[in-house]
Amino acid sequence: MNTSTPVIIREVGLRDGLQSIVRTIPTEQKLEWLHDAYAAGLREIEVGSFVPARLLPQLADTADLVASAKRLPGLVTSVLVPNLKGAQAALESGADVMLLPLSASHAHSLANLRKTPDEVVAEIARIRSLRDSSGSACLLEVGLSTAFGCTIQGAVAESEVLRLLHAVLDAGADRVGLADTVGYAQPMQVKRLFEKGFAVAGDRLACGHFHDTRGLGLANVFAAWEAGVRRFDACTAGIGGCPHAPGASGNVSTEDTAFLFASMGVPTGLDFDALIALRARVAQWLEGETLHGAVWRAGLPKTMLPAA
Amino acid sequence: MNTSTPVIIREVGLRDGLQSIVRTIPTEQKLEWLHDAYAAGLREIEVGSFVPARLLPQLADTADLVASAKRLPGLVTSVLVPNLKGAQAALESGADVMLLPLSASHAHSLANLRKTPDEVVAEIARIRSLRDSSGSACLLEVGLSTAFGCTIQGAVAESEVLRLLHAVLDAGADRVGLADTVGYAQPMQVKRLFEKGFAVAGDRLACGHFHDTRGLGLANVFAAWEAGVRRFDACTAGIGGCPHAPGASGNVSTEDTAFLFASMGVPTGLDFDALIALRARVAQWLEGETLHGAVWRAGLPKTMLPAA
Repeated sequence: MNTSTPVIIREVGLRDGLQSIVRTIPTEQKLEWLHDAYAAGLREIEVGSFVPARLLPQLADTADLVASAKRLPGLVTSVLVPNLKGAQAALESGADVMLLPLSASHAHSLANLRKTPDEVVAEIARIRSLRDSSGSACLLEVGLSTAFGCTIQGAVAESEVLRLLHAVLDAGADRVGLADTVGYAQPMQVKRLFEKGFAVAGDRLACGHFHDTRGLGLANVFAAWEAGVRRFDACTAGIGGCPHAPGASGNVSTEDTAFLFASMGVPTGLDFDALIALRARVAQWLEGETLHGAVWRAGLPKTMLPAA
Repeated sequence: MNTSTPVIIREVGLRDGLQSIVRTIPTEQKLEWLHDAYAAGLREIEVGSFVPARLLPQLADTADLVASAKRLPGLVTSVLVPNLKGAQAALESGADVMLLPLSASHAHSLANLRKTPDEVVAEIARIRSLRDSSGSACLLEVGLSTAFGCTIQGAVAESEVLRLLHAVLDAGADRVGLADTVGYAQPMQVKRLFEKGFAVAGDRLACGHFHDTRGLGLANVFAAWEAGVRRFDACTAGIGGCPHAPGASGNVSTEDTAFLFASMGVPTGLDFDALIALRARVAQWLEGETLHGAVWRAGLPKTMLPAA
């Protein structure tokens, strides 16, 4: 297993994390989060979502976040878009990546987006046309969620995930990720589905998104890495969840994911102490919320500390 | 990867767990823990430690626990022994397995047992002689701790771990496990060291013991399983720790470890609901202590529930 290829961790706390928390934190704090994450070495950050403010008032300042993020050299700024209208806003904002979620589960797709998966695929084709006609270089990334199972439907057939992976690439997605937002994935399944996915999509399959709902988050990250995944979503303090996944709280934490790769000697470009300091600030801003993650408490092992 | 071979999970809460908790819980509650664990399908349980009661008063009733455990059909009863005197007590108790810890770290060995690793190897030879002359069938298992690094010494050379593995088998250990009681291990290292260990010890290398101190517990269990390990220590509610490892709290939890294997379709013989119910009782008995684990909160995924 080659440990010299860098792994990219994309911080998704400002979107996936805050989306699951009812309170609205002020834009100034989000900007501090953004800048501290950048200072810690994170070079991909999902800063918000272009959804109607009445649905997610806590993300209503997404355009301001993108504007500020655009001033940070070398930062790849992602935003979530639910549909063509959101994509229009993303293109206007100047974001580098627009991330469109597509539930592989038919039932979850209807509950979450009120569209069938194939209706979302058709929307992806329209978004691609819009992007191309706009002349924007914004990448269109599709997050195939419930790829490992669904709280509503239960099992999701691997053949359906692979069919949709094919379909979204045909519809014009630049890249695709597989996501387990409900904490159903297990490591053998993760390896198998990513291996099959790479056979379909090659390096256009370019992200793993795992939640630690049932304790397997980092085991799944490791398994995906073994299968060849080199880009992962993670969230400071392990916040985040899914409104349609009861009890499903917690993306894998950025700190613990960074620690996993650092412990294996895999380059991430991240400053551990800066990530832990950011976690402490986020913990203040979100006082009273349940946070997650382990390494912030124990600190780095002696074997990873700089020589005294 | 063959998922049909069963995995054995040994419950170590009554020893490794309670050892790290200052309060003494009554023998009656320990017996309930023992019987509930057995009812949940656990067939290997570490019930205590034959150390002087002045050092660990909370484990002073170990002989009573062994006596009760011996009446449970098919249960393999383990006890920890620190030295020859403890081994004598273990043999008298009728335990099935006596588990002797040996720190691969020279510094940790001196701090924890006031002996060098090679002095412990010599003690293992004396314990083996005692066992043989007693006519007992009690297995002598050595737990090679700090095998992945040490809070005092830092790095521990793999060559030293393998040298000691050789030495303890030569001294008469029936089987050996590799342990990370301080949460320093990472999955690639776990795979590599177990693979090298199997080359030395074959199936006499027969246990993986991991702590979740820095969030990598289950990733390490999965990596060890990939390397061929089929027997793991775990602790209800993820309690446990090491007095010489500051901040190092938490064996991998029995419930989450059982869930990991169940989710992959690997047989463990364990009843998930019974494990969760046991966790709830342990949480009552240990009210105020910090507990760990994730799946007890979220429950099984829909894909693993019996059909309605």
